[in-house]
Amino acid sequence: MALNNPTPLGPWKITVYDQENFQGKRLEFTSACQNIMECSVDNIRSLKVECGAWAGYEHSSFCGQQFVLERGEYPHWESWSGSNAYHIERMMSFRPICSAQNHKESKMVLFERENFMGRQWEINDDYPSLQAMGWGNNEIGSMQVQSGAWVCYQFPGYRGYQYIMECDRHGGEYKHYREWGSHAQSFQVQSLRRIQQ
Amino acid sequence: MALNNPTPLGPWKITVYDQENFQGKRLEFTSACQNIMECSVDNIRSLKVECGAWAGYEHSSFCGQQFVLERGEYPHWESWSGSNAYHIERMMSFRPICSAQNHKESKMVLFERENFMGRQWEINDDYPSLQAMGWGNNEIGSMQVQSGAWVCYQFPGYRGYQYIMECDRHGGEYKHYREWGSHAQSFQVQSLRRIQQ
Repeated sequence: MALNNPTPLGPWKITVYDQENFQGKRLEFTSACQNIMECSVDNIRSLKVECGAWAGYEHSSFCGQQFVLERGEYPHWESWSGSNAYHIERMMSFRPICSAQNHKESKMVLFERENFMGRQWEINDDYPSLQAMGWGNNEIGSMQVQSGAWVCYQFPGYRGYQYIMECDRHGGEYKHYREWGSHAQSFQVQSLRRIQQ
Repeated sequence: MALNNPTPLGPWKITVYDQENFQGKRLEFTSACQNIMECSVDNIRSLKVECGAWAGYEHSSFCGQQFVLERGEYPHWESWSGSNAYHIERMMSFRPICSAQNHKESKMVLFERENFMGRQWEINDDYPSLQAMGWGNNEIGSMQVQSGAWVCYQFPGYRGYQYIMECDRHGGEYKHYREWGSHAQSFQVQSLRRIQQ
């Protein structure tokens, strides 16, 4: 089930519901689900992450908008979607994220231009505003994840589209926004942070 | 204009526009604005934070939903609102936030129950999931900010309603959710982080 996923190192557990506010049909998972409809559920309308970090997706087979899901309670679509431009209100697949065992060991290199070109900056911390920390503009050309898992956001303060970047996928290399996810439409990234277990 | 605000320590600058995508009437501010209508603007529909951190508010006189605004570009309401339950699409007032000179010096104590009672936990870091870090449930009863400025969120991963907490306001004491802001309807807080300059 875990498409291209390395063997999970830690325990993961997520409980999903087909109605808002943790009502309706309830299903527990400890590994990836490629299509919730195969479990006779038409859509996920609330969820609780009980262990680990997960990536949720708008469409089946881990496509469309991405949602980072960390431990806690999400009673409706808006609670995990972030502030996005389109409100499709669907979550059809999800999978565990292998973040760093210790998130302080997470490391990533940002590049000004695509294909790892231009000015570069190695980071190992959370940045609610990349511009406040010295990055010159509101775009990142490409990224190389050297350790752990990261989530990048379109707007400052961890808002807007979420792009999940992992050292265990694509060899950690994200050369162009087309590799950030099928929902990515531009190079715009204004905040980013490490994903913690 | 800066209601109860101490003298700003650093430079602040925000540019607001009355149309989306940085179009229409353009106004620059370096201190608080209590009511944008007094500047002959009916609403703020996009903005750029050029210096410092700011708090934006749904209504005039710093009331209603709160939005933390850090350096960067916000082309429309969804880019600063976060994922909230109601989409009123208004921002009528804003003011500078005095965060810690060095955000690593920020400090806050969380209390399990209101009026600084129950189990307590001193924090000086960002927490995308309080539950993952050992906090027992999805609520915080009260908070005491000892240094810097913080933003608390209803949902994990810095989503949902934003509550801005500052050591320079209320004496840093937030005894009950009624003191977190006029939009607060419950004790639910699942993530929080320091506000950086």
